[in-house]
Amino acid sequence: MSLMWEDRYSRRADLIQGSAIRELLKITEKPEFISFGGGMPAPEVFPVKAVEEASERVLAEHGPAALQYSTTEGYRPLRRWIATYLSRDGLRLDENNILVTSGSQQALDLIGKLFVDANDRIVVESPTYLATLQCWRPYGATFASVPSDQDGMVTDELAPILRPSAKLIYCVPNFQNPRGVTISAPRRRELVAVAREFDVPIVEDDPYGSLRFEGEPLPSLMCIDAAQRRDDQAYDGNVIGLGSFSKVLAPGLRVGWIAAPPRVIEKLTLVKQATDLHTSTFTQMVVHDIVSRGIMERHIGVIVDEYRRRRDVMLAALTEMFPQGTTWTHRQGGMFLWVTLPANVDASKVLELALEQKVAFVPGTPFHADGAGRNTMRLNFSNATPDRIREGIRRLAAAIAEVLNPVSG
Amino acid sequence: MSLMWEDRYSRRADLIQGSAIRELLKITEKPEFISFGGGMPAPEVFPVKAVEEASERVLAEHGPAALQYSTTEGYRPLRRWIATYLSRDGLRLDENNILVTSGSQQALDLIGKLFVDANDRIVVESPTYLATLQCWRPYGATFASVPSDQDGMVTDELAPILRPSAKLIYCVPNFQNPRGVTISAPRRRELVAVAREFDVPIVEDDPYGSLRFEGEPLPSLMCIDAAQRRDDQAYDGNVIGLGSFSKVLAPGLRVGWIAAPPRVIEKLTLVKQATDLHTSTFTQMVVHDIVSRGIMERHIGVIVDEYRRRRDVMLAALTEMFPQGTTWTHRQGGMFLWVTLPANVDASKVLELALEQKVAFVPGTPFHADGAGRNTMRLNFSNATPDRIREGIRRLAAAIAEVLNPVSG
Repeated sequence: MSLMWEDRYSRRADLIQGSAIRELLKITEKPEFISFGGGMPAPEVFPVKAVEEASERVLAEHGPAALQYSTTEGYRPLRRWIATYLSRDGLRLDENNILVTSGSQQALDLIGKLFVDANDRIVVESPTYLATLQCWRPYGATFASVPSDQDGMVTDELAPILRPSAKLIYCVPNFQNPRGVTISAPRRRELVAVAREFDVPIVEDDPYGSLRFEGEPLPSLMCIDAAQRRDDQAYDGNVIGLGSFSKVLAPGLRVGWIAAPPRVIEKLTLVKQATDLHTSTFTQMVVHDIVSRGIMERHIGVIVDEYRRRRDVMLAALTEMFPQGTTWTHRQGGMFLWVTLPANVDASKVLELALEQKVAFVPGTPFHADGAGRNTMRLNFSNATPDRIREGIRRLAAAIAEVLNPVSG
Repeated sequence: MSLMWEDRYSRRADLIQGSAIRELLKITEKPEFISFGGGMPAPEVFPVKAVEEASERVLAEHGPAALQYSTTEGYRPLRRWIATYLSRDGLRLDENNILVTSGSQQALDLIGKLFVDANDRIVVESPTYLATLQCWRPYGATFASVPSDQDGMVTDELAPILRPSAKLIYCVPNFQNPRGVTISAPRRRELVAVAREFDVPIVEDDPYGSLRFEGEPLPSLMCIDAAQRRDDQAYDGNVIGLGSFSKVLAPGLRVGWIAAPPRVIEKLTLVKQATDLHTSTFTQMVVHDIVSRGIMERHIGVIVDEYRRRRDVMLAALTEMFPQGTTWTHRQGGMFLWVTLPANVDASKVLELALEQKVAFVPGTPFHADGAGRNTMRLNFSNATPDRIREGIRRLAAAIAEVLNPVSG
């Protein structure tokens, strides 16, 4: 007789659910599929040569140290570099503000582990980043949604949601996943002020901020918070910032960071110690070698040019091929467009037909903590080449037309 | 006013404690320190050249794929290699039995997250691996200790401890951390049988098994379990095995694995997805390149020769310099010796004096779930060079003598 493993699982195991997106990605991994599904960077612009040269230099210069255990906080020169990179407009960070993580996903997990108790209310944008919901639910999180429009989170509606009690506010301020929308400058100021009024920390998750195709960058929530506080010392406010090298260098290296007040970093370091001891010394040193030579800044220019081109191809194809009554967002950066189909179209039905035609996207519902968004879809434009983008949109348009006007069998 | 972060932490945050060892390691990182404290491999024998060549080949052959997101389960060729590596003596594993983890520490965390509920009883050897206690306590674990002697866990005493209820049995069967002891073959058979009788899964944590200096390797608990079950298919018993490339290649790459029944691996994969998405694609491919060329097997020979030499130097120095009434273990492998001081000597007092003399070790108490072991100390012999081992033991002997016969001020 085999053991009944299921009887052995913890209560939180029921709350650990697979991501529909990850499952979809497995199906659509095959090369004949055109995927607008994942949030994958364009492999054509990965800095393979730079990683190769950096690996060589790191092993030649640091040899054994690159292969040895290292401190949980992260490789000190990389922490310093990140602190300097983020310090601007009155925001001052030093290495004690930085914890290096094994990608941004780990940052979410560490924060969930440290902060989230059973039945804690977490305030999120509606829709919000799916993996955050999945990561924090097993720790007991419940979610309260703030609406979001073309200017991002509708901060006017924040106070009544925070009033009963809230543990954290979570948001993606730039080119949000899934809608691609950016929180406007006035709303950023209001968000920071209201959060402070209610004494609720903000988790500012910003993997896409550097992928701006046009327009001026807006100050980060942490910057705004620091400016209002006029801290003389290293940042000690109430924003926790998450960042990552995944979208600007390479996700396969799994290097990200948390920026926060030093005593929060200290406690998160203990959490990380029990979680994976430390992030790979070797990949941290490789990343540091690349960024400290200014290679990343130049590389971001290459990515931005390519993604802008792909976005424009997708926008043109949508305009040309998608049926009337469909609307979509025109974004200034990031990796996603958000499409709203006519109210009577179920995006999951469109997906069924689309998969038969070997094209994938993610329906909008899973991104809504409240189950809304039935007629919405997230389209990634960074991963497919321009030719395949046009072909994929053509197939999607046919699938939508079929759902709108089913040909009776 | 700054936010009171502490008021925001979850209830489990109180249970997240730093490791005395990691704190000690920070102090003793300075080159003038002789450290017998951590479990650090000898940097002198790291395969720097092999990693350099593997990195080059991986980037030349797989380029963008090595830098892209990959599946949570791990790089398929590496999972296959690990499955084959572990399959012996009637144990048959395939890739569905394997989840690649970001080091063995992550394996412990994923298992804690999936299995451990508040007040669950976990059965451990006394003493046991410190980081396991620290990792599972925040999930609510309580620990019940089984005594351990020269033949490892005293399995005769297991049944009464399992009777009230137990969620898991955790053990390090080979060259255990901290005592360096190995569970004998008859006790292995008894452990597997008793665990099955009480329907309690075993977590078999084996980072040191390949570091055998002399004597014959013993069958793993998973092997014994598989042989008794006579599975025709891939392993589906009740042992979960943890392994790592940290001690046999390089800890800085952070690549380890969990071997378990396929449905447990499926669930652990969902847990890992929310925890860090996946382990670095690049380091997984580098490890696979090295192991698939047989470089690791040859390299293990180099490590074993060097560690045997270092162990012998430490044993000779202990015999020569440590005071009467002190005993220690003579081990056939691994990285640690375990010293028992005269009953009236407090190892933490010895540590105070030793740190003044710039030599570090870890007192035995934190490894005991029940707080015992006041007069014991763990000595690592893998990290320091032979000269420094002799010098370090000389200083330690002086510190012990001082505690035994304090010179009045």
